Amino acid sequence: MMESKPNAIVAQSGGPTAVINSSACGIIQEATKSGKIGRVIGATNGILGVLKEDLFDISAEKPEAIEALKQTPAAAIGSCRYKLKSLEESRVDFERVLDVFKAHDIRYFFYAGGNDSMDTADKVNKLAADAGYELVCMGIPKTVDNDLAFTDHCPGYPSVAKYVAACAAEAGKDTEALYTTDTCTILEVMGRNAGWIAAATGLAARCPEDAPHLVYMPEAAFSFEKLVSDVKEVLNALGRVFIVAGEGLKDDKGEYVTADKGAFGKDSFGHAQLGGVAEMLKAVIEKEVGIKARFNKLGTNQRSAMHFASLTDVNEAYMCGQMAVKGAIDGVNGKMVTLVREDGPEYKCTTSLAELKDVANGEKKVPAEFINDRGNHITDAMRDYVRPLVQGEAPITIDEDGLPVFMRFERKPLEKKLPDYL
Amino acid sequence: MMESKPNAIVAQSGGPTAVINSSACGIIQEATKSGKIGRVIGATNGILGVLKEDLFDISAEKPEAIEALKQTPAAAIGSCRYKLKSLEESRVDFERVLDVFKAHDIRYFFYAGGNDSMDTADKVNKLAADAGYELVCMGIPKTVDNDLAFTDHCPGYPSVAKYVAACAAEAGKDTEALYTTDTCTILEVMGRNAGWIAAATGLAARCPEDAPHLVYMPEAAFSFEKLVSDVKEVLNALGRVFIVAGEGLKDDKGEYVTADKGAFGKDSFGHAQLGGVAEMLKAVIEKEVGIKARFNKLGTNQRSAMHFASLTDVNEAYMCGQMAVKGAIDGVNGKMVTLVREDGPEYKCTTSLAELKDVANGEKKVPAEFINDRGNHITDAMRDYVRPLVQGEAPITIDEDGLPVFMRFERKPLEKKLPDYL
Repeated sequence: MMESKPNAIVAQSGGPTAVINSSACGIIQEATKSGKIGRVIGATNGILGVLKEDLFDISAEKPEAIEALKQTPAAAIGSCRYKLKSLEESRVDFERVLDVFKAHDIRYFFYAGGNDSMDTADKVNKLAADAGYELVCMGIPKTVDNDLAFTDHCPGYPSVAKYVAACAAEAGKDTEALYTTDTCTILEVMGRNAGWIAAATGLAARCPEDAPHLVYMPEAAFSFEKLVSDVKEVLNALGRVFIVAGEGLKDDKGEYVTADKGAFGKDSFGHAQLGGVAEMLKAVIEKEVGIKARFNKLGTNQRSAMHFASLTDVNEAYMCGQMAVKGAIDGVNGKMVTLVREDGPEYKCTTSLAELKDVANGEKKVPAEFINDRGNHITDAMRDYVRPLVQGEAPITIDEDGLPVFMRFERKPLEKKLPDYL
Repeated sequence: MMESKPNAIVAQSGGPTAVINSSACGIIQEATKSGKIGRVIGATNGILGVLKEDLFDISAEKPEAIEALKQTPAAAIGSCRYKLKSLEESRVDFERVLDVFKAHDIRYFFYAGGNDSMDTADKVNKLAADAGYELVCMGIPKTVDNDLAFTDHCPGYPSVAKYVAACAAEAGKDTEALYTTDTCTILEVMGRNAGWIAAATGLAARCPEDAPHLVYMPEAAFSFEKLVSDVKEVLNALGRVFIVAGEGLKDDKGEYVTADKGAFGKDSFGHAQLGGVAEMLKAVIEKEVGIKARFNKLGTNQRSAMHFASLTDVNEAYMCGQMAVKGAIDGVNGKMVTLVREDGPEYKCTTSLAELKDVANGEKKVPAEFINDRGNHITDAMRDYVRPLVQGEAPITIDEDGLPVFMRFERKPLEKKLPDYL
């Protein structure tokens, strides 16, 4: 009987990416193929959906919809930034998660997200073990920030890297064309603590004329004096300057460089809420250098740019989902799938596993050898790192409106078995 | 003898687009093929290049470079925003233009740009006629703003339309995924006085769930009361809201809606310099509705997005350049090539001609029947207008870095024959 097989929950957490749905696709298709799992259940908006018992039957969705996940950006199951704290502080939440799992005979929990999600998965896992409830928790890496430890890179990063590098090349051509009035352009990209996204744009600079001319990452101490001096030097050489700035630039004391630190709130995970770096650079350059500057802020468009996503990324994200299921069925538990870059002249990526708790506490920044000595561009080592990741263009389906087609789940809800919560 | 044939200048003006180089390609290839034109000469940075006698020999460029113009965004010859005023006010400039033309035996002037450029071309033409200097001036329409009169649409617009609509669809998916924290997203797009670019994003909304939920164009009177009421209504229905705002929103008195009108300067053409619409909307929504809002500002990335440009646009832009040369050789003078949408169930675009001076003084806004009664979205008439324009994806060449390849001219300079100017 189908019903005798244990069920699996798939959930997505944190900031969406172009390929987190590819990982979901890998999980769903592998789980279905395995014959070991009953129903694949979606938790609407990550752990929030579990807490609220807001679940839907992914196994009832059309196979075409599942396949179309590979071409759909963001998080089709739904994401959230709800963070469970320590077992002590959030014990009620953790117990509720376990109650929901028990009520729906969930024995597999596949959670795609960043450090915080791995932490949640790890704690749920420990609580289940303590309670003697058989549960397998597997993490799937996901973050455009590329800052997870123990993995060569994170699914989601290669796509944003490819897109922002192309954007830098394109807007750089715009600045090159119109430098007589719009002499300086600043492209602000994401990256709270790690400059991986900013660094990727450096790939577009194949010669000194090419944008970006200056790339500022949080890992290199930033100052306005340095900015002004860098800008003047590029202006002298080229008559124009194209700058990429990570949103989380820091000074030599490690403090965020913002116009008004106090004015920025915090997000639900307690991280400082950043913004305004490009506006600030624009103001300083216009005042101190005396040229017109403009800025582009791609915002969420950079992490959702399915129309120019990396095929390598789509495939690897799928593989991460697939390997999480294979591992779970083979008896692995409490691990996150990692990507491993094999040695050798050709890029080859395989997977391995890391402890959820280790990932939860790790953070990987752009290493010093990827940043030039002056802290204003990348090195060839960074180019060599990122180049294989951005290979290939993910296929998209274009409809009669000339636009990409994205899927949306039908979301047949699972009947609630527990009292309301939250 | 080659030297006995008259020469042609090709120049580009104003804000770059994804396809202004396709028009240049059409001009150059048709001029070369015609056998009637000696050298095709590029004026570096539009009319500035003519004034400075900063010219280069396009006929000496490699044919592959000319062909690659079709895949290169912005303005490869170089653009500017230098505006010549009336013949009386700028007589010295106009006479200099004619002197440069005479010095290099320029008998054809092909100028791609918007209203201001058509005005310049028209005046140069009149001055030449008065001076008894045989000259043919032809305009090629170019503007992402799509606000030129006498043409069904402007080359450059279809590509930005396709790109921003895809961006709205994608970032809309991001908001849909993460609405539990990032409940509202504002996408700011270009369009100083005309809302054509904002309107194009409406194509992405195929059903009420789809982004954008609200589209604000300068043609519909905007107020913060209306915004707050619109946002609350969408929130009630969907729990999230995705807004597209043209940069030049105006109130019911036709005044720009800006946080601080006095703080914005003017650009070199005397237009009000806009900015900050998205920031303003974000602030009002956060304060008055009490939800978190974020904004994306695509800036120059929207007009240079070659990686998702419209193939229809590339082809039509090329055709405009080609027809300008054909017309010029056939004895047409003082006209801009226009695009004509033929009647019939299938989209078919041909070209016609309009007087340069008429184009210079015209402006085409989004008509009332393309905007819904509530002034916060588009109608099916707008969808029908824009749909055929965004068909097809322009081919791009991807290199070993996984990025689009763009060309750059070698720029063999023409020897200066006149004293310095400017």
